[in-house]
Amino acid sequence: MKDFSFLTDQLYGKKSFLCVGLDPDVEKIPKIFLNDPQPLFSFCKTIAEVTESLAIAYKINVAFFESQGPNGWIQLEKLVSCLPKNCLIILDAKRADIGNTSAQYARYFFETLNADAITLHPYMGLDSLQPFLNYEEKWSIILALTSNSGSQDLELQSMADGKYLYQKVLGLYGTPDSRNQVMFVCGATHPDLFLEIRKICPSHFLLVPGIGAQGGDLHETIRKGRNDSGGLLINVSRSICYPEYQKGFEQDVYDSALSFQQEMMEYF
Amino acid sequence: MKDFSFLTDQLYGKKSFLCVGLDPDVEKIPKIFLNDPQPLFSFCKTIAEVTESLAIAYKINVAFFESQGPNGWIQLEKLVSCLPKNCLIILDAKRADIGNTSAQYARYFFETLNADAITLHPYMGLDSLQPFLNYEEKWSIILALTSNSGSQDLELQSMADGKYLYQKVLGLYGTPDSRNQVMFVCGATHPDLFLEIRKICPSHFLLVPGIGAQGGDLHETIRKGRNDSGGLLINVSRSICYPEYQKGFEQDVYDSALSFQQEMMEYF
Repeated sequence: MKDFSFLTDQLYGKKSFLCVGLDPDVEKIPKIFLNDPQPLFSFCKTIAEVTESLAIAYKINVAFFESQGPNGWIQLEKLVSCLPKNCLIILDAKRADIGNTSAQYARYFFETLNADAITLHPYMGLDSLQPFLNYEEKWSIILALTSNSGSQDLELQSMADGKYLYQKVLGLYGTPDSRNQVMFVCGATHPDLFLEIRKICPSHFLLVPGIGAQGGDLHETIRKGRNDSGGLLINVSRSICYPEYQKGFEQDVYDSALSFQQEMMEYF
Repeated sequence: MKDFSFLTDQLYGKKSFLCVGLDPDVEKIPKIFLNDPQPLFSFCKTIAEVTESLAIAYKINVAFFESQGPNGWIQLEKLVSCLPKNCLIILDAKRADIGNTSAQYARYFFETLNADAITLHPYMGLDSLQPFLNYEEKWSIILALTSNSGSQDLELQSMADGKYLYQKVLGLYGTPDSRNQVMFVCGATHPDLFLEIRKICPSHFLLVPGIGAQGGDLHETIRKGRNDSGGLLINVSRSICYPEYQKGFEQDVYDSALSFQQEMMEYF
């Protein structure tokens, strides 16, 4: 079981907050993988093998597999089963529906695929996420404050009690005893707000997208977002999966991941 | 192209608001289908063939296919390609992510599968749904006020301007000129609120879940929710897919759908 202690142990053991985001875009992956009958799988597996010592988690972007139809799902199932066991395996699927339907998603992702975590939309409320929360040994990672500019449209709108909507989401799902199975997505593109987030959820882990291609600042994120147990999984997708060509794909991926981990090291 | 006029023509032609929800639960579908190597496909196709003259739309619950892995997706692709052409084909997938990822979902559902419509989560804001809206000849059906009890947790919370969150969603995505490609999910379990919804979005189509198993009132929904062009797709899933056994599966499905359509007829 990859629980809170597992994460903290990995974090301090590897001196890293790094979550490697696996976004296998068939229009961008190196040609060498396109000769493979399972190019998405091979591309992601290669990245994972190369970065295993530096990463504490892998976040698989399910949309890139789903867009390939049944053959994409075959590759996804194979990938999840062979990613490093000493890392948290997150399926970034952003699901949520009414109870009987969420139960279908939860069973597939948590039982059939045996993933450790899934990302979820909070909009439909508590009962829509309960089927995921019923798996107490799995992680539900709930969208709070996302890294895109559209976060202004609803998430950063004020409620009647003066709180922003994303703060309401943190309060609703982030009860103190939920920290062993609930995390929140909080984007690095809003670093100042990490101080507010930590007032509501001091001890929860946060999954932080927005570093790298999206322009978030790594150091400001760590300084304002970390807590006593680390508390951050900082995701980097495009900057690691699609490094500038220098010494060959595997070495370039490793070097890119290493440069992020080295910047993180100074906080341990 | 199944545009606004297509829907209105179907509605008045068939004197029906009926959207048949296809929720193929392997634990509930009749045993006769379980001998088929593609039981979800056969079950849904049979229901569609039987109800085609009564329905204006089919809403496919994607989770029930996704939960079956790659073989589920093979059946989903086959099903979408052979549903009646004179009905709107809605994929109830409840997706939404940052732009480059939503683009992957949009391409798969709108191009590869060639569905007419998809359901979407509004939480991440306008830019997260733009890749779907870029398909101007397809429908984006955005969650506003859902039928589950969890709708109280966020959707029915008040904003600083006194509006509920779901009203903010209607205002954000429901500009007057979007009625040709945007619908909203508004649950029949909140019939009194249809009057408020119609003040913000007088001319948009609404996809209405919550009739039947969830207890919403059909007549109150129609009286308070319809508009000059009909404006409602009223979804019934479980009461049609899983009728009480009387005369055999096909006849029972037809009879159940007919009883809903006959109640709707009086409003034409």
